[in-house]
Amino acid sequence: MLDTIEKMARAAREASRRMAAASGVQKNAVLAALSQKLSEKKALIQAENAKDVAAARERGLSAAMVDRLTISDKVIASMIQGLSEVAALPDPIGSLTETAVRPNGLSVARMRIPLGVVAMIYESRPNVTVDAAGLCLKAGNAVILRGGSEAILSNRVLGGLIREALAENGLPEDAVQVVPVTDREAVKILLAQEELIDLVIPRGGEGLIRFVVQHSRIPVLKHYKGVCHVYVDEGADLGMAVTIIMNAKVQRPGVCNAAETLLVHAAEAERFLPLAGKSLADAGVELRGCPKTCAILPYAKPAAETDFGFEFLDLILAVKVVEGMDEALSHIARHGSQHSEAIVTQDYERARRFLREADASMVAVNASTRFNDGGQLGLGAEIGISTSKLHAFGPMGVDELTAKKFVVMGDGQVRS
Amino acid sequence: MLDTIEKMARAAREASRRMAAASGVQKNAVLAALSQKLSEKKALIQAENAKDVAAARERGLSAAMVDRLTISDKVIASMIQGLSEVAALPDPIGSLTETAVRPNGLSVARMRIPLGVVAMIYESRPNVTVDAAGLCLKAGNAVILRGGSEAILSNRVLGGLIREALAENGLPEDAVQVVPVTDREAVKILLAQEELIDLVIPRGGEGLIRFVVQHSRIPVLKHYKGVCHVYVDEGADLGMAVTIIMNAKVQRPGVCNAAETLLVHAAEAERFLPLAGKSLADAGVELRGCPKTCAILPYAKPAAETDFGFEFLDLILAVKVVEGMDEALSHIARHGSQHSEAIVTQDYERARRFLREADASMVAVNASTRFNDGGQLGLGAEIGISTSKLHAFGPMGVDELTAKKFVVMGDGQVRS
Repeated sequence: MLDTIEKMARAAREASRRMAAASGVQKNAVLAALSQKLSEKKALIQAENAKDVAAARERGLSAAMVDRLTISDKVIASMIQGLSEVAALPDPIGSLTETAVRPNGLSVARMRIPLGVVAMIYESRPNVTVDAAGLCLKAGNAVILRGGSEAILSNRVLGGLIREALAENGLPEDAVQVVPVTDREAVKILLAQEELIDLVIPRGGEGLIRFVVQHSRIPVLKHYKGVCHVYVDEGADLGMAVTIIMNAKVQRPGVCNAAETLLVHAAEAERFLPLAGKSLADAGVELRGCPKTCAILPYAKPAAETDFGFEFLDLILAVKVVEGMDEALSHIARHGSQHSEAIVTQDYERARRFLREADASMVAVNASTRFNDGGQLGLGAEIGISTSKLHAFGPMGVDELTAKKFVVMGDGQVRS
Repeated sequence: MLDTIEKMARAAREASRRMAAASGVQKNAVLAALSQKLSEKKALIQAENAKDVAAARERGLSAAMVDRLTISDKVIASMIQGLSEVAALPDPIGSLTETAVRPNGLSVARMRIPLGVVAMIYESRPNVTVDAAGLCLKAGNAVILRGGSEAILSNRVLGGLIREALAENGLPEDAVQVVPVTDREAVKILLAQEELIDLVIPRGGEGLIRFVVQHSRIPVLKHYKGVCHVYVDEGADLGMAVTIIMNAKVQRPGVCNAAETLLVHAAEAERFLPLAGKSLADAGVELRGCPKTCAILPYAKPAAETDFGFEFLDLILAVKVVEGMDEALSHIARHGSQHSEAIVTQDYERARRFLREADASMVAVNASTRFNDGGQLGLGAEIGISTSKLHAFGPMGVDELTAKKFVVMGDGQVRS
């Protein structure tokens, strides 16, 4: 096992050198070839996937898990669409930024370069195999993919197709490798290859992510959870506020950028809570309110202290009436997860202060927390969201899978 | 001890919140006040420093170590100069970049924010206390400084002055704290505070840095060593090549961006090596050559295999004749430390290829490796050099002590 994983990491490092020198045309040809294979080999992919699904059903996995695991026609189409979006992005590698000429005549710039070798550790969705490989290849990296045990046959067939696409286009097939075993011992060995792997990105439940962080000697980019707040300020457009909290809570409650807590300025509580409460309750949202909220909304349940800062990932919303910005910002500092925070306001100064002081990877004024997403923010596609500030904070697109080195062009300059 | 360090880290975290909201005017006022104190309290600083120096002499530290430890008038002047350069930099915090408007009308940008709490772990030079504090404060961070035991009295007096400057300008004095003890157990405790400290920067010998990396649960930015190469290409301007290798090797041999190995294209070896060899030998440089080098330069010693990839930090240079770019780049890939690499060439294609393929934080054409320095590359001042690609690669200035978050301004947008 140790041997297998080390050998994979070494092969990935080797492949990453050739990937770094690959042209944009070559990398896009791989993405196009892979799209074609996904379409031509749909029957094969779905047959392998059906075995994973059958085994998952036998093991009694939840309907939601089985749904995530299933490679429907729609999932195939979305993988193909994702690859074409990644192909359409400009090739980041080799581009020069921050160019300047120093007083001594040296031209100085920064050149974008690949990170090297990325390891992805994820759970059920096999489409991550294709999405992550596409982004890593575009950025000139090699990637080692370790998906969940329940998706192993699906991931193997997808990994095989990606490697075919690489080889057919003159690039090393070891630039994409699927770890053939799925136990956690293999993950631990992978996480110890700090000489060969440059970055680890875990995606999945908090348990998986904590396991990765605890065992990794390689830098990890991740978020544990998304405890996102919407704060309705004094004087806010209350109709807009209802629209935003409905979208943030209801549109897709199971994702990390959904809202979990609503904060309402005391001056608006009596008018706003009945409006918002009705829409939310009609949509099946259970409200858990502070005493002031419960006094206004008799159908709200009293919130426990632990409901604030909790990631429900469900149609449940904690609601708190606050005295103003100071209390709202303190509440967010204490209970937030540095993921996504939103204010609804018409006040210029408070909008400005919230943008500056709310400590989160995305801070929004008069917009839904749900916009914290690579596609929505204009990155094209994302490989994950980071809530730690080093290297990347927020959605990670192609650029976040690269680094920049200094390049210097002179005509004989030396230092005096 | 555990209590002391944890308490310091907690106080730093608290102080970092207030520093994040400090204005540029306020932060610059602290830097100016500190400059004035360094000048006014010079006698006090030098008296404390003299005790450190006396103790170091008693313990038999080398002359070089004692020199690094001594706060001469020149060192005071250079600290003051450094602070004024940092003050002159624009305040990075709150600035918006990568602004765009999405099709749905959302304005999206990235706002520069502080990292939070930085821990600096360093050895003998007490001026690092002032230099690092100045950069961290400018970037809106709090910093915990743990200098070497030999400089403890110097660091304490400097730390005290920095804290006075903070307090006098309405900022929390705990934004800068000097660890009062210097044993390695204290460092281990510091390195375990991953909930309270965001980044660790070690500066010093390879032993210290490896100790920090091994024990840290916090991200570390560092370089172990600088094994820098100068490659003299076929057709290079040989006079320029001599000037560059002389500067890279001789000007300051004890620093990380000094050259350690000279690579020479076989077609130029017979002409170039006698020219360069004479200048280097005249400057007292010991040459350790490959067999081809020794055949041309009778006074070169035969190099051992371990001389290639070795950081001499001294007037010693390994020399190797190579067949061309492929061999030069392979040699650098195998023996380099991703620090600084230079080519001397007149060929457009090879210059372009070297810039792209040499894997180092600074790659130079027709310029000395010695330019890999924050001041020389235009960053203003640097807190260290990173040779790992995540977050920062190369010299780290004020911007590298910050992160960027996404800010979104809308007028009621929700996600569909």
